Amino acid sequence: MPHSLSPIGVFDSGVGGLTVLRQLIDLLPEERFVYFGDTARLPYGEKSRETIIRYSIENTIFLLEKNIKLLVVACNTATAHALERLEQIFNIPVIGVIEPCVEQAIEVSKKGRIAILGTKGTIRSESYQKAILQKMPTAYVLPVACPLFVPLVEEQYMHHAAARLIVQEHLKPIREKSIDTLLLGCTHYPLLKDLIRSEVGDEVNIVDSSSACAHKVCVTLKKMGLQATENATPKIEYFVSDDPLKFQMSGRFFLKLPIEHVSLYQT
Amino acid sequence: MPHSLSPIGVFDSGVGGLTVLRQLIDLLPEERFVYFGDTARLPYGEKSRETIIRYSIENTIFLLEKNIKLLVVACNTATAHALERLEQIFNIPVIGVIEPCVEQAIEVSKKGRIAILGTKGTIRSESYQKAILQKMPTAYVLPVACPLFVPLVEEQYMHHAAARLIVQEHLKPIREKSIDTLLLGCTHYPLLKDLIRSEVGDEVNIVDSSSACAHKVCVTLKKMGLQATENATPKIEYFVSDDPLKFQMSGRFFLKLPIEHVSLYQT
Repeated sequence: MPHSLSPIGVFDSGVGGLTVLRQLIDLLPEERFVYFGDTARLPYGEKSRETIIRYSIENTIFLLEKNIKLLVVACNTATAHALERLEQIFNIPVIGVIEPCVEQAIEVSKKGRIAILGTKGTIRSESYQKAILQKMPTAYVLPVACPLFVPLVEEQYMHHAAARLIVQEHLKPIREKSIDTLLLGCTHYPLLKDLIRSEVGDEVNIVDSSSACAHKVCVTLKKMGLQATENATPKIEYFVSDDPLKFQMSGRFFLKLPIEHVSLYQT
Repeated sequence: MPHSLSPIGVFDSGVGGLTVLRQLIDLLPEERFVYFGDTARLPYGEKSRETIIRYSIENTIFLLEKNIKLLVVACNTATAHALERLEQIFNIPVIGVIEPCVEQAIEVSKKGRIAILGTKGTIRSESYQKAILQKMPTAYVLPVACPLFVPLVEEQYMHHAAARLIVQEHLKPIREKSIDTLLLGCTHYPLLKDLIRSEVGDEVNIVDSSSACAHKVCVTLKKMGLQATENATPKIEYFVSDDPLKFQMSGRFFLKLPIEHVSLYQT
């Protein structure tokens, strides 16, 4: 049985979830973490609901073998499609990236005009849209699929003129529809935040799913009395389903910390 | 046992291999084809050698169950990593996309200054580089990894200003190194051919792996006496490991023909 000294499990399709892990490390420095990146089957963004659910269940079973006390689904696509199913099947708290982010967006939005930037899969699932309208039925919600943002970030084109053109193209409707809050519905997008900010100006709120999720984990652990005690030994373990070295190299840019060792676990 | 009326098997990670299938249909209109797109595990470009080999073996076994007489590995990454292994294991002719293309490039290149455009995985495997130097030891070979080309094609950004900027960025060394032949080492790249042509000018030869591969299949079938006879009934069957509808929709742009029915086969 998991207890307060057990690790927190985090999974994503690849490195994107490391932006969530980074926020978690900052907020919960006493905790242990096990991170799993399903790099052999990434990206999840464009795959079907059924396939995402199957992969998410397999990833969770792997993390449960590490005796985790709480599961973080650090991937927007997996949260959108599989969160409910994971909660039904498994007997531990499961925190995704959508609900915490939606709560924050509603809190800061003054006019209730909220845009969601996400992968095609996340937008198609309508999870953000439904979650916002459920909590704020009068909201105007604008979903914007941005399938090129992830490759731009992964190839570190964030500062290239082409990235600005592509971001501009996607943000056109934001101005036209006088949006007041922009929700970054993908764990890769915080790395494009400066570019997005420079396009939308200071008057638009930008809420990102990575930091909102980490805050929710913090609150949940406290509520359940599952926080690590002061005599805990913090530790982070990394597993991937393909190419540990590549994960180690590119992961640093997402975690903004060195990654010492990555093990292979074949799904 | 396969015979002349058996189908030709073709696999790729997704829709890219349809540019090869299209060339095959044009050259061999009497033949039957079974196409498998491993859409649940795409893209292959960035995955490790071991994983690509495992996936390729699984895909081939599925196609062998359809009694294929010849296997086309219509994916540059799978050809680079797994072709030799497939030839060792399986008892049917296996044609990849690399060797035929290299042969054609050497044939047309006057100065022996050849550039290879490909995904990171293809470039890293050095398969094109080695194949060229084996046949033409005096050649100057310039490998150029273009990881953003596939997402640009898949999102149909081929005609967007951002695509031109990204293509220009990647083609810079082509001019600097006075390349005379450009090899398109990815089945997606024929869809960027016009843009690439307009950047490099008419004096550079452009050789693409899809059409070179189809020609090789044609020659091999004739040599082995395995061509379909005139009373054959041509037929194309499509299978994918995820989201048949999506494949059907986006596949048209690669095949430039309608796709009538796609079945699911879960890997």
